[in-house]
Amino acid sequence: MRMVVHMAGSSSTQGLTAVVAAPGTSVSQSSGKITCGLAAAVPMRSESRPLSSLRFICGRQVAGVSFGPAPGLLAKSKTGAVAALSPFVVNTAQVVEEVEKLSREKVEESHKFDLKDFMIAKAKVVNLALDKAVPLQHPVKIREAMRYSLLAGGKRVRPALCLAACELVGGDEETAMPAACAVEMIHTMSLIHDDLPCMDNDDLRRGQPTNHKVYGEDTAVLAGDALLSFSFEHIARETTGVPADRVLRVISFLGKAVGSEGLVAGQIVDIASEGDSSVDLETLEYVHIHKTAALLEASVVIGAIIGGGNEEEIDRLGQYARYVGLLFQVVDDILDVTKSSAELGKTAGKDLLADKATYPKLLGLERSKEFAQNLTVKAKEQLSIFDQLKAAPLLGLADYIANRQN
Amino acid sequence: MRMVVHMAGSSSTQGLTAVVAAPGTSVSQSSGKITCGLAAAVPMRSESRPLSSLRFICGRQVAGVSFGPAPGLLAKSKTGAVAALSPFVVNTAQVVEEVEKLSREKVEESHKFDLKDFMIAKAKVVNLALDKAVPLQHPVKIREAMRYSLLAGGKRVRPALCLAACELVGGDEETAMPAACAVEMIHTMSLIHDDLPCMDNDDLRRGQPTNHKVYGEDTAVLAGDALLSFSFEHIARETTGVPADRVLRVISFLGKAVGSEGLVAGQIVDIASEGDSSVDLETLEYVHIHKTAALLEASVVIGAIIGGGNEEEIDRLGQYARYVGLLFQVVDDILDVTKSSAELGKTAGKDLLADKATYPKLLGLERSKEFAQNLTVKAKEQLSIFDQLKAAPLLGLADYIANRQN
Repeated sequence: MRMVVHMAGSSSTQGLTAVVAAPGTSVSQSSGKITCGLAAAVPMRSESRPLSSLRFICGRQVAGVSFGPAPGLLAKSKTGAVAALSPFVVNTAQVVEEVEKLSREKVEESHKFDLKDFMIAKAKVVNLALDKAVPLQHPVKIREAMRYSLLAGGKRVRPALCLAACELVGGDEETAMPAACAVEMIHTMSLIHDDLPCMDNDDLRRGQPTNHKVYGEDTAVLAGDALLSFSFEHIARETTGVPADRVLRVISFLGKAVGSEGLVAGQIVDIASEGDSSVDLETLEYVHIHKTAALLEASVVIGAIIGGGNEEEIDRLGQYARYVGLLFQVVDDILDVTKSSAELGKTAGKDLLADKATYPKLLGLERSKEFAQNLTVKAKEQLSIFDQLKAAPLLGLADYIANRQN
Repeated sequence: MRMVVHMAGSSSTQGLTAVVAAPGTSVSQSSGKITCGLAAAVPMRSESRPLSSLRFICGRQVAGVSFGPAPGLLAKSKTGAVAALSPFVVNTAQVVEEVEKLSREKVEESHKFDLKDFMIAKAKVVNLALDKAVPLQHPVKIREAMRYSLLAGGKRVRPALCLAACELVGGDEETAMPAACAVEMIHTMSLIHDDLPCMDNDDLRRGQPTNHKVYGEDTAVLAGDALLSFSFEHIARETTGVPADRVLRVISFLGKAVGSEGLVAGQIVDIASEGDSSVDLETLEYVHIHKTAALLEASVVIGAIIGGGNEEEIDRLGQYARYVGLLFQVVDDILDVTKSSAELGKTAGKDLLADKATYPKLLGLERSKEFAQNLTVKAKEQLSIFDQLKAAPLLGLADYIANRQN
């Protein structure tokens, strides 16, 4: 990948030349001359990124960076050829190659860094939208219970996937926001019901007492029901600027992901598998694909549908999400045996205690980690049809899910 | 109301004369002459009902009825005037009045009789549609649990209301069938969750052990969740021949009726009211309006939306359904204290045992019955804008709900 950037002060990107400096390089400018140790000038592209991106790429490793117009280079750049930044560079080809390698590494690294900003930004708008969607009103108790779990500060991975997919195919964040909120409502419902004494009987969730511990089992059941029905209502009522038949497709896809062909199917087989020592990899995969991957897949696919993605795009994104979804659960299995409750914000070691079939149990910890790595690669491969810069959030999300620590 | 009917053998309804015989009247015909004790000939209307209706109206009280053309009367009828069937009737006006009174009584009675056929017919198609909508497939256990409660032979009041409303405003039964199935799925979900040990802790429902008694609490929670999400999916996926924006309006309305502004709101206030001796009529009405009336209202309103009803029709039907919904619960309260578990098919006397606020407790049994009667009248008044013959199913359903015995 060739990293191209605006030069500060350029009024047009076509035919101009960009300077890319390697990290650790000292770059200074005075009297219209650029001084640096290792750099290259590369032709600009129309879709080149703004200066802030270059700053970001060079990041904290470059000290005292400053950029400005380099008159001597502008003339050369108009030929469109790669130009050496003489007299500092002897071998243009070598420098370009090194800078491109650097760019690749930095772009990969930038996904993580970008992603952090991206995730914080998305979580912020999603939290605002969720807060607004479920205001505190009569009857207060049920609304409190719904809000308690819904606004408990989850990572908002599913809404972020939904919004990222929508934007990747050219849609606006706002149009996908009701759907993004809906997948978080459904996810929260599944957590509330999953934590019930008759299910996993869990006391801790997202670092807080579980819903039924605070509000009682009856209210917890009802809070889940209310969140579930509201999720569909919210999409139907609040999605604007999208053709109605597309919204119906979204509701249809989401419903399937939740019900007895999706999340519930995974949970019921998961429950049936407890204490069954004959559970094999196939069954385990069935559980994870349905219990976890289905809703992640739905998050991505409905974002793409709302964003107006074509069938190939929707299909590829669906495949990406299935890999990511399975990955999510494999990592969950790994974290359950490698982390403490405090680190996870929920009870750790539960799977071991319940003698549940998990990837670490069936494959061993190391092979589970390899499997997770393979899934990450496969997930990213699905995104090859997209502009890689635009796909950065979803590429980064795959890494994030693979490397998450809780 | 003037009862008008086809005469047997008539090829045209305009300008012909109908014979309406009073119950208990012997009517015979030979050689083109009609012989009867009390009858009237009235002008035909274009929307007059077929002969079968007359048979039905006179019903079992008329022995040996037979109808045929009465040449002597046809000439008179062409004037459009009410004609006496001489020589058997002396005072035409009196006979017409008596026959009209009889017609009114018989039409009212016919609702009940019609309704029985109507309810059986609707329950049959709804049961077939529900069976088809949730086939037995992997994972079998959750499907079995869903089907166990869904196909337990309820009266299908809500689907019948939905289909009747659709047909009343000119829609086809088939277009409203997915929505009709959806309201039954939601109703079933609410029963399964309501029966859970952490809620009403009930052992008996529709004459059978409750869902969690058969499948366990965890599966019962999940079966409810699956039915709830599937209800919305089913409407979105299966409703055909209806503009997509209308289907979205249906989903939106239905979601509101189920969640924390509808059914769940009613349940949470109901739970909070248990053992609270200060619960007043206002709170009780809030509970019933939300816990029961909201879904009945939704059933009717979404049927009307799908059927293409105009805003006044949808509004009137909504008001009708709110009265009927409240009526439904008032009658439920009354039945709880007047019937046995065997008669109800569920545990009787529960409200008394739980010292719950009910209409009989707050108003007394007699005033509760009067209140139910008033609600029935008000509900029917809302239907005055419709053709009363076409509204017969909904008029009859109000009577049915008022007079139901379980």
